Amino acid sequence: MEKGQLLYEGKAKRLYTTQDEEILFVEYKDSATAFNGEKKAEIVGKGNLNNQITTLIFEKLQEKGIASHFVKRLSDNEQLVRKVEIIPIEVVTRNIAAGSLAKRLGFEEGTSLKRPIVEFYYKDDALCDPLITTEHIDVLGIATPKEVQDLYDKALQVNEVLRPIFSAVGVTLVDFKLEFGRDKDGNVLLADEISPDTCRLWDTETNQKLDKDVFRRDLGSITEVYEIILQKLGGK
Amino acid sequence: MEKGQLLYEGKAKRLYTTQDEEILFVEYKDSATAFNGEKKAEIVGKGNLNNQITTLIFEKLQEKGIASHFVKRLSDNEQLVRKVEIIPIEVVTRNIAAGSLAKRLGFEEGTSLKRPIVEFYYKDDALCDPLITTEHIDVLGIATPKEVQDLYDKALQVNEVLRPIFSAVGVTLVDFKLEFGRDKDGNVLLADEISPDTCRLWDTETNQKLDKDVFRRDLGSITEVYEIILQKLGGK
Repeated sequence: MEKGQLLYEGKAKRLYTTQDEEILFVEYKDSATAFNGEKKAEIVGKGNLNNQITTLIFEKLQEKGIASHFVKRLSDNEQLVRKVEIIPIEVVTRNIAAGSLAKRLGFEEGTSLKRPIVEFYYKDDALCDPLITTEHIDVLGIATPKEVQDLYDKALQVNEVLRPIFSAVGVTLVDFKLEFGRDKDGNVLLADEISPDTCRLWDTETNQKLDKDVFRRDLGSITEVYEIILQKLGGK
Repeated sequence: MEKGQLLYEGKAKRLYTTQDEEILFVEYKDSATAFNGEKKAEIVGKGNLNNQITTLIFEKLQEKGIASHFVKRLSDNEQLVRKVEIIPIEVVTRNIAAGSLAKRLGFEEGTSLKRPIVEFYYKDDALCDPLITTEHIDVLGIATPKEVQDLYDKALQVNEVLRPIFSAVGVTLVDFKLEFGRDKDGNVLLADEISPDTCRLWDTETNQKLDKDVFRRDLGSITEVYEIILQKLGGK
């Protein structure tokens, strides 16, 4: 499968066409961005790490019956995925209060929630990805009520699969962001990536942050902590 | 019924005890505040207007079977209400995009929504009254799922009663904020006030703002436009 034309360049990945109309070629970039793109850096090796971590996670999800756009990893920083039309909703699942939730509700960071919650954010850089409700989604017309229920259910299913995988290797899954897309038949498929860029992962014993907060908050080397996650998940 | 001890002073009202434990005495103040208290002014006559407008609206709602804490108006700026424990949720119903919704979703102010929507905001000045979802309410523990459903249903009922009342006098009910409280038996009762301080009201023909946006956005005399609303509702 060969890399064709550049279709889209995002903050962390480039998407290219392939000879197969339904398959895209993804190249993971070495860029880190935070705060809606206000903070940026080039971090050598980050693209490789996220490509490998995402691959391991999508494979584990697939084993548990959770389909995604993921087809296969091609190289250190490249993979093939099914083509989907991304639904402009970031689906955030939270087990523990951190980041914007802690600020919004006045919870101390690290407070366990009495149950996992799912939030929706409108994927729109110009609006700074605001929190939205299911009724906002309805009046925006960006997903049907049935699709929203599907996003909600799938987010909790992914949580149920990933939490024990991480806890078995001493890592707490604090929260994570998913994106979904529609395939050509209109099926909702898990898409984008699942990596320390899109999850909050804390060492269960020491509370060390093993995720993008290391970059957001200048806490050290992000490739060092991403490497820890990769190894814990059984990567090379 | 005599004014007893000052129980609580808010931005727009003072609450006093009465001889009856279940009844409170409300005094409407002449203060206007906006942007979480950042903008303030004393506006002579505003308390009287809101007391009278709220009275008319609570009476109209009561006629339609929507119970509230309202007991009776005592004077120009005073009324009696049932004592309730206020639920710290601002319930906002919207028919047309304006204010924070227009900003959040990128809608032009004045865009009709395809259907009324209800939003919840966490009543907490220190947190700047953030938008919250039903799941946030659950983890905050500030209302039960049954109460939340009740707030939602009552907000839409109030909308169904008020929209035609306003439209019959050439006023568009753009959006409005309600507060609710629990009485001593735990029943959820509409509370607080319903006035141009808590509604967006636009002249249907000219789009003139007849509400607190006149104060927020320095568009003229707020008592003049509140007076128009009072008269249109049949007040003196």
